[in-house]
Amino acid sequence: MTPAHPEAHLKSTATVRDVVIGMSDGLTVPFALAAGLSGANVSTGVVVLAGLAEIAAGCIAMGLGGYLAARTDAEHYQKELSREIEETREMPDEEAAEVARVFQGWGLTDQQIEPIVAAITSDEQRWVDFMMRFELGLEEPDRWRAVSSAATIGLSYVAGGLIPLAPYFFAPNLGAALTASMAVTLTALLIFGCIKARFTGISLWKGGFQTVLIGGAAAAAAFLIARAFR
Amino acid sequence: MTPAHPEAHLKSTATVRDVVIGMSDGLTVPFALAAGLSGANVSTGVVVLAGLAEIAAGCIAMGLGGYLAARTDAEHYQKELSREIEETREMPDEEAAEVARVFQGWGLTDQQIEPIVAAITSDEQRWVDFMMRFELGLEEPDRWRAVSSAATIGLSYVAGGLIPLAPYFFAPNLGAALTASMAVTLTALLIFGCIKARFTGISLWKGGFQTVLIGGAAAAAAFLIARAFR
Repeated sequence: MTPAHPEAHLKSTATVRDVVIGMSDGLTVPFALAAGLSGANVSTGVVVLAGLAEIAAGCIAMGLGGYLAARTDAEHYQKELSREIEETREMPDEEAAEVARVFQGWGLTDQQIEPIVAAITSDEQRWVDFMMRFELGLEEPDRWRAVSSAATIGLSYVAGGLIPLAPYFFAPNLGAALTASMAVTLTALLIFGCIKARFTGISLWKGGFQTVLIGGAAAAAAFLIARAFR
Repeated sequence: MTPAHPEAHLKSTATVRDVVIGMSDGLTVPFALAAGLSGANVSTGVVVLAGLAEIAAGCIAMGLGGYLAARTDAEHYQKELSREIEETREMPDEEAAEVARVFQGWGLTDQQIEPIVAAITSDEQRWVDFMMRFELGLEEPDRWRAVSSAATIGLSYVAGGLIPLAPYFFAPNLGAALTASMAVTLTALLIFGCIKARFTGISLWKGGFQTVLIGGAAAAAAFLIARAFR
């Protein structure tokens, strides 16, 4: 594997990626909620209150939700693993035929396949690994990585959410707070979109434009809904 | 592949899964926000307004965000695909050695590996497919599926979000609305957690307990934060 390949790059910077994910989500929804409430002309105190409540809720939903989903993935993997182990023991011929089928798909002749299947099925661990990866497409989840990832995303959501909310703490009135919040947040979304783009390999401008579009559209929708129902 | 294998099951019911994902998220955050604001003793009108603004924002963020992320995945796949095609043309020996390395990992001898590598590298399409899947671990994303999935999740978020909010439309006072919202939402979360559990293969009770825990913890956090800052 050459060092230029992207997966090594992705792993080494996974934490930065989690920060960006949490922050761009944290920027989007609290920003839109605050903008929406501003459209309904409530007091700035209410906007701050609702914003903080949303940040707390979103942080728990993303952090705890992410953690539990990772645990479920790990359990799902273990369950499938036990099933594959059982299957290789109870119906070895069918499972060996499934190994052969993978290689048939690559255009190998039965003569070429025979020793390969024999080599793979000679060791239970190897056989089960092969079935998990190539038949079910499952890779063993990294539990610790999932926990730290969930925590990073949750905390970044809080940090991101405080950016659009900050102007509402300090601005003299709701209109000024909304304007300042829009300026600060859309700039932050642009920056985070560009950073995100570096990880997914799309162009910086496209990445920046996408996060700004999501944030702007969410804020516009919240603003219009709140104004219609005030 | 036996019909009992879970991946066929998962695909055929992907839409139901998207509905459950969108709905359980929609139930969680708007529920927590409304509960949090109730703790700060604002008017029910403000709770409804904030709830509707949040639902609009969350729907756009999940729907549009999901759609754009899917498009980025597709572009990322295409970019890696072009790179692999280029690499098999410009440095075929190194790329063939990478194919051999995959089989060495399964304990095959060089003698067994030689014809396999020859068969795989004899066809560019097959060679590139192999590299994409087994070296980079990437599968071709289904664009249309991503679009319909994003739309389903976004709309289910709206439907889910209206459940905790409904009592605030009708209840005579904030306390009654909060109590009714908790009863309705925790029941709904329990049901959705059980349905979700069926897809991930964990026990129904565990699945139900997890979604109720996430919703309850998010609501408690929002409630405490809002009460502290009111």
